[in-house]
Amino acid sequence: MNIIVIGAGAMGGSYGGRLSLCNRVTLVDTNASLVDRINASGLVLEEGGRETVFHPSAATGVCGHVKADLVVLFTKALYSRSALENVKGAIGDDTVLMSLQNGAGHERVLCEYVPRERVVIGTTEDNGYVISEGRIHHGGEGVTNIGVLDGVDGSFLEDIRQAFEPCGFTVRIHADIRRLVWDKLMTNVSLSALTAVLQCDMGYIYNDRYARDLCTQLVKEAVAVANAQGLGFDEEAVLAKVVSVSRANPGAYTSIMKDIAAGRRTEVDTISGEVVSAAHSLGLSVPHHEMIVSLIHAMEGRGCQGNSR
Amino acid sequence: MNIIVIGAGAMGGSYGGRLSLCNRVTLVDTNASLVDRINASGLVLEEGGRETVFHPSAATGVCGHVKADLVVLFTKALYSRSALENVKGAIGDDTVLMSLQNGAGHERVLCEYVPRERVVIGTTEDNGYVISEGRIHHGGEGVTNIGVLDGVDGSFLEDIRQAFEPCGFTVRIHADIRRLVWDKLMTNVSLSALTAVLQCDMGYIYNDRYARDLCTQLVKEAVAVANAQGLGFDEEAVLAKVVSVSRANPGAYTSIMKDIAAGRRTEVDTISGEVVSAAHSLGLSVPHHEMIVSLIHAMEGRGCQGNSR
Repeated sequence: MNIIVIGAGAMGGSYGGRLSLCNRVTLVDTNASLVDRINASGLVLEEGGRETVFHPSAATGVCGHVKADLVVLFTKALYSRSALENVKGAIGDDTVLMSLQNGAGHERVLCEYVPRERVVIGTTEDNGYVISEGRIHHGGEGVTNIGVLDGVDGSFLEDIRQAFEPCGFTVRIHADIRRLVWDKLMTNVSLSALTAVLQCDMGYIYNDRYARDLCTQLVKEAVAVANAQGLGFDEEAVLAKVVSVSRANPGAYTSIMKDIAAGRRTEVDTISGEVVSAAHSLGLSVPHHEMIVSLIHAMEGRGCQGNSR
Repeated sequence: MNIIVIGAGAMGGSYGGRLSLCNRVTLVDTNASLVDRINASGLVLEEGGRETVFHPSAATGVCGHVKADLVVLFTKALYSRSALENVKGAIGDDTVLMSLQNGAGHERVLCEYVPRERVVIGTTEDNGYVISEGRIHHGGEGVTNIGVLDGVDGSFLEDIRQAFEPCGFTVRIHADIRRLVWDKLMTNVSLSALTAVLQCDMGYIYNDRYARDLCTQLVKEAVAVANAQGLGFDEEAVLAKVVSVSRANPGAYTSIMKDIAAGRRTEVDTISGEVVSAAHSLGLSVPHHEMIVSLIHAMEGRGCQGNSR
């Protein structure tokens, strides 16, 4: 399969590297120095105590006489549109666009580039971090959950599975992928969002009663919005899961917390912001999520103040 | 007049020092080292470019064979009850209790010690900060606004004025003191509370559009609660005032912001928490203030984490 992976960070690099084992992969990233290094020396993945060098092509953009079969987005949601502009020439009549990005609602941008029935959304259960330029730690079991929107026909999902699995990924095709996306979203909009606002580690949310109460209120609002869309979550079960993630990771920092700490823009609009958008379109009130979105944006601006004013 | 001033910080020290010019003043503070210093060397106030040494008595508590005419509270609201316990022996049948503390709702604690008609609430337009132990910078025009609860008779307010004014204070007696207390509260529950959560200076709230929007929402909720109590605020006027305070003090830090930065407990319960209490007793919804209270308490706990866990 001819695959473009956009974003050569921890996740894009892990997928792009591994997928290059049995596909023609181009890793697209705006970082020219990283692109040069991958083309010259390959991409090193540290996985399960071993390290392997992979050799996908890398580029800062794709002009595209050849159309891609699949474009996979791994950029921060903030940059999805500009990233897709960079590879627009390679998007043809049969190209499938897939987002495995954090958060929800990414399909809106993807649908600007291909018809809705060629959009795939999903989640990855993997994780990773960049050790140094061109060297990535890749963790997790390689489980990739994918599906199409609105239950339209997605026979090409099987092609994706066949392209991914020989490279070490386990692909699960879901008829109700939005539920899975929202299931992952639940933790992001409660636990992760709060760690950003409070600038604390994941375990703190479980340990502090005020933080835990806020987390509970965020879960309740998000479950109400999800269930108004027919996603059928059990509030108690979601709460228990979020609490267990907090307890199980006492010293861990979320990416959105680190973005704020470093004065960077965050993905809050496709995390908590998605709960707000969905709530508004359903006529529901989610004051806690609205306030989280505003607070995180206000904190982002504070970072700018430190950097450039 | 025989006056006990509780709390020898910036404001208590400024009032206690100046009032000692023509009254018998005892400054009560739990800091024994500060008490010893004031008794040995007096209290130095830097005011308008000059410095003056005042000689109130100081004590860590008052047993009280002599009953006080007036007890003025300047502690943080957190410590009001324990501070009053410390001087309980000096509270007699004619003693008036007065709070010039930040925030609102202080009368509830005062009413535990004297009948409601001997409780005075008010605000000071002064400001100050502690330069070093026993040395205080005192700023402002010395305007002290006072009044009694529920418009009950308060002929002793005139006695207070006569005791204060020869010492350099201007005392204004108000029939509607609660409105004045809430007027000051408006800035505290919006601008100050937000600077604590965002850990930013006062000017930032004006400069960042998300912070400004949050500030506006906080003002709107607080005005609705105040007006449901018949206080008759004009929302636009309050908003304009809060914004002008933010613009006029770009590099200034609020005390609640500094409390959070230093990992100390804050007065949020008598600031934003008063809006929440009043709202609940009126059957109103104030989700933004509720969330501010929870967030600030959660941030206080984070301070404890750094200090003691």
